[in-house]
Amino acid sequence: MSSTWGRNIKITIFGESHGTCVGGVVDGLPPGMVIPVELIEFELRRRKPGGNLATARKEDDSYEIISGIYQGMTTGAPLAVVFRNKDIRSGDYEEMRSKPRPSHADYVSMVKYNGFGDHRGGGRFSGRLTAFLVFAGALAKSILSERGGIEVGSHLLKVGQVEDQPFETEISPQELKLLGGMEMPFLKDGINEKALSYLEKIKKSGDSVGAIVETAAIGVPAGIGEPFFDSFESVLSGLLYSIPGVKGVDFGKGFGFAEMKGSEANDSFFMKGKSVATITNNSGGINGGITNGMPIVFKTAFRPTPSIGKEQETIDMDEMESAKLSVSGRHDPCIAVRALPVVEAALALALLDLQMEGEALNG
Amino acid sequence: MSSTWGRNIKITIFGESHGTCVGGVVDGLPPGMVIPVELIEFELRRRKPGGNLATARKEDDSYEIISGIYQGMTTGAPLAVVFRNKDIRSGDYEEMRSKPRPSHADYVSMVKYNGFGDHRGGGRFSGRLTAFLVFAGALAKSILSERGGIEVGSHLLKVGQVEDQPFETEISPQELKLLGGMEMPFLKDGINEKALSYLEKIKKSGDSVGAIVETAAIGVPAGIGEPFFDSFESVLSGLLYSIPGVKGVDFGKGFGFAEMKGSEANDSFFMKGKSVATITNNSGGINGGITNGMPIVFKTAFRPTPSIGKEQETIDMDEMESAKLSVSGRHDPCIAVRALPVVEAALALALLDLQMEGEALNG
Amino acid sequence: MSSTWGRNIKITIFGESHGTCVGGVVDGLPPGMVIPVELIEFELRRRKPGGNLATARKEDDSYEIISGIYQGMTTGAPLAVVFRNKDIRSGDYEEMRSKPRPSHADYVSMVKYNGFGDHRGGGRFSGRLTAFLVFAGALAKSILSERGGIEVGSHLLKVGQVEDQPFETEISPQELKLLGGMEMPFLKDGINEKALSYLEKIKKSGDSVGAIVETAAIGVPAGIGEPFFDSFESVLSGLLYSIPGVKGVDFGKGFGFAEMKGSEANDSFFMKGKSVATITNNSGGINGGITNGMPIVFKTAFRPTPSIGKEQETIDMDEMESAKLSVSGRHDPCIAVRALPVVEAALALALLDLQMEGEALNG
Amino acid sequence: MSSTWGRNIKITIFGESHGTCVGGVVDGLPPGMVIPVELIEFELRRRKPGGNLATARKEDDSYEIISGIYQGMTTGAPLAVVFRNKDIRSGDYEEMRSKPRPSHADYVSMVKYNGFGDHRGGGRFSGRLTAFLVFAGALAKSILSERGGIEVGSHLLKVGQVEDQPFETEISPQELKLLGGMEMPFLKDGINEKALSYLEKIKKSGDSVGAIVETAAIGVPAGIGEPFFDSFESVLSGLLYSIPGVKGVDFGKGFGFAEMKGSEANDSFFMKGKSVATITNNSGGINGGITNGMPIVFKTAFRPTPSIGKEQETIDMDEMESAKLSVSGRHDPCIAVRALPVVEAALALALLDLQMEGEALNG
Repeated sequence: MSSTWGRNIKITIFGESHGTCVGGVVDGLPPGMVIPVELIEFELRRRKPGGNLATARKEDDSYEIISGIYQGMTTGAPLAVVFRNKDIRSGDYEEMRSKPRPSHADYVSMVKYNGFGDHRGGGRFSGRLTAFLVFAGALAKSILSERGGIEVGSHLLKVGQVEDQPFETEISPQELKLLGGMEMPFLKDGINEKALSYLEKIKKSGDSVGAIVETAAIGVPAGIGEPFFDSFESVLSGLLYSIPGVKGVDFGKGFGFAEMKGSEANDSFFMKGKSVATITNNSGGINGGITNGMPIVFKTAFRPTPSIGKEQETIDMDEMESAKLSVSGRHDPCIAVRALPVVEAALALALLDLQMEGEALNG
Repeated sequence: MSSTWGRNIKITIFGESHGTCVGGVVDGLPPGMVIPVELIEFELRRRKPGGNLATARKEDDSYEIISGIYQGMTTGAPLAVVFRNKDIRSGDYEEMRSKPRPSHADYVSMVKYNGFGDHRGGGRFSGRLTAFLVFAGALAKSILSERGGIEVGSHLLKVGQVEDQPFETEISPQELKLLGGMEMPFLKDGINEKALSYLEKIKKSGDSVGAIVETAAIGVPAGIGEPFFDSFESVLSGLLYSIPGVKGVDFGKGFGFAEMKGSEANDSFFMKGKSVATITNNSGGINGGITNGMPIVFKTAFRPTPSIGKEQETIDMDEMESAKLSVSGRHDPCIAVRALPVVEAALALALLDLQMEGEALNG
Repeated sequence: MSSTWGRNIKITIFGESHGTCVGGVVDGLPPGMVIPVELIEFELRRRKPGGNLATARKEDDSYEIISGIYQGMTTGAPLAVVFRNKDIRSGDYEEMRSKPRPSHADYVSMVKYNGFGDHRGGGRFSGRLTAFLVFAGALAKSILSERGGIEVGSHLLKVGQVEDQPFETEISPQELKLLGGMEMPFLKDGINEKALSYLEKIKKSGDSVGAIVETAAIGVPAGIGEPFFDSFESVLSGLLYSIPGVKGVDFGKGFGFAEMKGSEANDSFFMKGKSVATITNNSGGINGGITNGMPIVFKTAFRPTPSIGKEQETIDMDEMESAKLSVSGRHDPCIAVRALPVVEAALALALLDLQMEGEALNG
Repeated sequence: MSSTWGRNIKITIFGESHGTCVGGVVDGLPPGMVIPVELIEFELRRRKPGGNLATARKEDDSYEIISGIYQGMTTGAPLAVVFRNKDIRSGDYEEMRSKPRPSHADYVSMVKYNGFGDHRGGGRFSGRLTAFLVFAGALAKSILSERGGIEVGSHLLKVGQVEDQPFETEISPQELKLLGGMEMPFLKDGINEKALSYLEKIKKSGDSVGAIVETAAIGVPAGIGEPFFDSFESVLSGLLYSIPGVKGVDFGKGFGFAEMKGSEANDSFFMKGKSVATITNNSGGINGGITNGMPIVFKTAFRPTPSIGKEQETIDMDEMESAKLSVSGRHDPCIAVRALPVVEAALALALLDLQMEGEALNG
């Protein structure tokens, strides 16, 4: 187990998809911080189920902060938040109790928790738990933005056969803001329609599809990250890989480096006015595990939602024999669409935690 | 800072490329374990500098265990090990003191440590520190192999333009052993020559190239990994991203999932004799952050060594103006070739740490 | 900040005295454990406010488990619990907003949290937060008792001028059980009356008094504790010193050792049937930071409740000048009386955490 | 296991009494710090064996810093230090291999490490490991003194029948400095002789005696400590209880609070010029787990050295039958005399770690 993450900003997550609630605790917030209610709601809406391309489950994602605030401001004490579950149809999941969904956590949960895990709706493995991450991420985003002008944003680089262009070396706050407001954010014009009709086709066929999300942070000062063993990439990838469905993370050119020579890959330094910058940003803003002042750029690969309507081969764990399974619950054709604010939350939390770490060091 | 990693098997790393030594501490080893001297030396040789395609630096990588053993066996106390540095030519690095190498840690180190970092040979950012990881990994491999028949191995999936085939769904211990014995391990026959001549050409041109390493572990039981926030992928990727040069990590189909449908991507369960298995292994042996009993398969992308002989654009930090730099030190054309045992060490350490975690839970 | 404690059984605490609730998260519980409802309620009653000698605040200490259980059993997921606050009279505390109570946390809270802390009823510094510790401790007690026959108990060794006798070398489960059932547990007969009338006198005079609690655990196997830096004493004292009001902890003869010679203090070994035991237990069951199989015995000193009715000297923080203060809230004459189950909870949690640690090591 | 302590300043300890060395790693030091060589040597001399009242073992306690420094200054990388063992007479310990010394760690070590522990000279349980703590503590003291004018010091409050007076409410830097220079520091005049002759008598009789050390830190700002679960008392007592021989720790009046009323115990606030102070300091400078700006004052109780020359009852673990044992090794009559710098090191490390924690919070 470790439901607690972080060293300077510390989060503890709990809850189940079809239990009483999902929620968590955020520890280490500075006292006197006004809760950024609008930002939290904006971010939760981006993640929210119920859209055309999302699961049909209706949750208004309303939350209650049950500790750590007084008169609308943080107190320095741990802040606990609870999202009560409302629209639960656990009957949908009875079959999965004995027949694990292929590539889902059903089977490993049975093994690991000796059959005692809450299987309903994926239990603790459900994407619904990310509501808390988005909440905590909004607090982190707010601090990063106010303290240091750091802004984050992301777009869909690839959704099945629909491909977007990657971020340029220079990324503006306006661009990131614009992306945040889109239901399906792309950098390239005119592919939104194409993506929508593609996903509707996928949905109709009872199938799902994977995707790649590209994310950036701008305004990040040089010097954040603790090499061996808390490199910026280590801490961020560790957190990203806790998001359900993530199966790949790379930074800058990432896997593309395999085909590059050093002379092509290296980012030459130059003086940009009075500050140091690089001409290219193949490194994604990170050298030796430490931010170098250029935009942080990374990609996150999501697998297709394993819950699909099509009939699949599995086993019946009661009988220990092969069986057929068709999942009738409510699911997304492409979870990545709703996962963008979750990825950004992970980035904001990793940035804040490591920035505070550096401050303790030099304090 | 965090030079300490792990919860059940805990490692602390120290040392610099051109300082007194590199080394570290391994805590949590079971008492009474015979030090696997041959395995340690075998693994260190795989990582060792001095080969044809490696840096010309000569280090015999001899080590001294200075605590935690008695009569050749572990005592239960922390084991500390030291690799003294011998073949040091720090003069090679004088120029880099003020002229940071593009894409290397030189610049971020100056910023983060206010100019006090040991810049010689990359200091603490040097790949030489991975000698300790390989040492600790050999201890972990030995425990995993003896306790539970877990074996690990890897090959070069891609080196510049040379491409190997990926692991099959079924992987045998013999296959992994064979790969361990090769200087440049490939699965495909007849590409070794091609790769050698390719790398020699790269080296002659004073350049370097990136690569992708594919790694597997077999014999891994289902149930290892702690979702939120210590998923198997989280813990392993966190450790991998501490290895110098790593810029990408994905599991199973990883980034390839972006083009797959759920119906293609899902690994159907079936009864393989009396045990549960999956027909395909697109998930790389991990569902919901927990091992499912299939081989663990993941890829690690390495950037080209930033230290190249070719002249590069940089800045002179004393003058804060642009400058030229040609690196004359001794460097690898492709660090990934020597990094295979380091990646495997990370895998073995992550596996052991999380397996012990699970045992505490169910104990 | 660190509202999270433990490595194998991990607790995160939150809440405030006069906010929405107090509560916490328990992570690392084995799956399939039946919630020991009766034991939890028994322990909560022991800690409960409202008795004759306790604060007049009425809280039924009812709780809601909001995650981590399914069909009355643990699932392996983090268990979160919430105790809603009901009987709140925050008006009592308005004066303390600017006039810190002597020896209370009011002043340091103002400094540390820049005046943003929730001051009502002591906020996060309130003893009310220990309700969660008692809850978590009951879970730990239940596991220790069922898995290994470990039982814990305590008595009041000293309350102002009333002094009890210490535990004998041999301690029986019956004796501990008996103590658990007493409102004011003493080992010596006939001092209960004396203590009651003493405390009533203290209460009437608007004053409070300190106390020493002596606690024991029996059935503890040898080998628990991790010297440097998680000795049994380190881990337990660290947790005890988080309980509001604790100002002293010692083990076995503790401070009494200062007057003893080695020849008097050493506990000679002998064969007790087929097992190793010691004739005396001056060490309190711990040598070198590790349990030795004898009963664990330690003392915890509580300061007098700082909130007293008598008029006191303080300062007015708004005016930065001296001021008078009489506290009119509801307070205990001797918090130690209600703190016994809290001390035992700390012991049970420390024991369980360190026992699981040892199991991971030897697994 | 946990040989690593701390969050912001992190130490990892290793080594054995009669192995190759003792030593450790200090992580989190600010870069550019000049190694305080004189202070380190001064502190090591205070702890050093070989004095009249100390074990006859001769170790010059010379050390080698093997990483983390460059040109005499810290680099920001982990600093590793090694004290090689020289004067080893392991033959002295052959008998203890099977006959555990009463109240020593011999027996629990056999049980915990299945007989594989290094028993020579107490192995990892030896007081010799504290040489590293004193080294690390000197670095911490140096930072605390330079950054914020914090000074620490201690005296022997009680050694068997010899009793000193406690610290006054006001403590001056001069007073602490004076104590640091004494071989046997007392506050009261004229008891030094008495103590010396008392200890010589104890030594001649082949016995040992316990003691209480009282320690203070002055210049400590208000606001250090993290209640639930890293109260100042929690963190410091946790570290103190890792020092071999410590069996009691209390703060301010500590165990004396049991006989005090709130009206006597409470420390009234007053304006001391422009700053807030308290008239008395019964709380030892800590309220609610957080420093209040007054001197930190605490007591540490040491048990008598268990290794005594007198014949003792024990068991022969090979035969599992009773046996006699006379320890012939070289031992201190009162370890507390040499433990003062170790206690101060623990205080300095705890202060520094928690002060940095607070800075990260408010950064």
